[in-house]
Amino acid sequence: MQKQKNSIQIRKVEKNINPLFVNRWSPRAMSGEEISHDDLMGLFEAARWAPSSYNNQPWRFIYAKRNTDHWQTFISFLAEGNKIWAQNAAVLIVVISRKNFEFNEKPAITHQFDAGAAWENLALEATSRGLITHGMQGFDYNQARKELDVPENFDVMAMIAIGKLGKKENLPIDLQEREYPSDRKPLEEIVMEAKFIVR
Amino acid sequence: MQKQKNSIQIRKVEKNINPLFVNRWSPRAMSGEEISHDDLMGLFEAARWAPSSYNNQPWRFIYAKRNTDHWQTFISFLAEGNKIWAQNAAVLIVVISRKNFEFNEKPAITHQFDAGAAWENLALEATSRGLITHGMQGFDYNQARKELDVPENFDVMAMIAIGKLGKKENLPIDLQEREYPSDRKPLEEIVMEAKFIVR
Repeated sequence: MQKQKNSIQIRKVEKNINPLFVNRWSPRAMSGEEISHDDLMGLFEAARWAPSSYNNQPWRFIYAKRNTDHWQTFISFLAEGNKIWAQNAAVLIVVISRKNFEFNEKPAITHQFDAGAAWENLALEATSRGLITHGMQGFDYNQARKELDVPENFDVMAMIAIGKLGKKENLPIDLQEREYPSDRKPLEEIVMEAKFIVR
Repeated sequence: MQKQKNSIQIRKVEKNINPLFVNRWSPRAMSGEEISHDDLMGLFEAARWAPSSYNNQPWRFIYAKRNTDHWQTFISFLAEGNKIWAQNAAVLIVVISRKNFEFNEKPAITHQFDAGAAWENLALEATSRGLITHGMQGFDYNQARKELDVPENFDVMAMIAIGKLGKKENLPIDLQEREYPSDRKPLEEIVMEAKFIVR
């Protein structure tokens, strides 16, 4: 919880909002401890309630817990830079998203966007529970698809590491230096009235 | 707030989670009232803190407030079925997402997924403030791109209606019948251990 206070202090919040959004960040220092099955299912429960076009719910979550036979398979997908720290996660997830609507098999324009909403619910519920998450693009998408039997009508979207906060000092030096909540573009760069404006 | 209690009652929640996720739903009955500029910026502030690959923050929000010159332009993008109720929103937004990373202009695989995370933050912050949001795919993507000057290196992702909850009775009968928080697939259909499983 100390860490969560820090994240508010470091980040420059322009408007007074629910602190949940600023308290969520993406640490790499994970403790190597397991998390309970109930906590894990609680994260998926939060993801489940995200909105989606036609309530199609394109998101699916394939997970591996540490200390199971599947763990090394999921670790093997990761880029070397992620293996270093993500090996201390409790759970690794591959998020996939169905490309077409189930009710008519037409392309769902927003399916990736909708899956992202579900991922954010998962991440925020983790913050609510004192757990940490870190989304990753640094993995072998084709290998994940092949080894997890992901069918062609789903996109492989991202991997997520979930765990308990560990000691920063246990990270390699270069990652220690990056172990703080990242800042954001100012609001005026992402918000435009009436038309697109080049900033 | 009465409505928010109802949403918990109607929805079958399998696990005990932060109530914010279940309290968020997508009403169509909007009151036609304006919302404050400060509330609107608060929603974008929440969106701003979403995670994204390389912290690239691909999301941009182009908005029009009712009672401005831009309102009818945004309304004109909408499918007829959305115009009927969204005309009573306070703000309409077009969400766009940058396709390539800013730091190297290479394709950002997760940019739509990341933009979806930002949208969910916006929606949840609205719930925190007693406002309502409704995401839409039912609009003319090409017309929105053209009339808002959205450049080719951004995808048009979705539109969002934001407002204050209005009376269900003011909706057309067919929409009144759909005016309740939608349910979701059971957890077991979206969560898989180790491999993709056909459900």
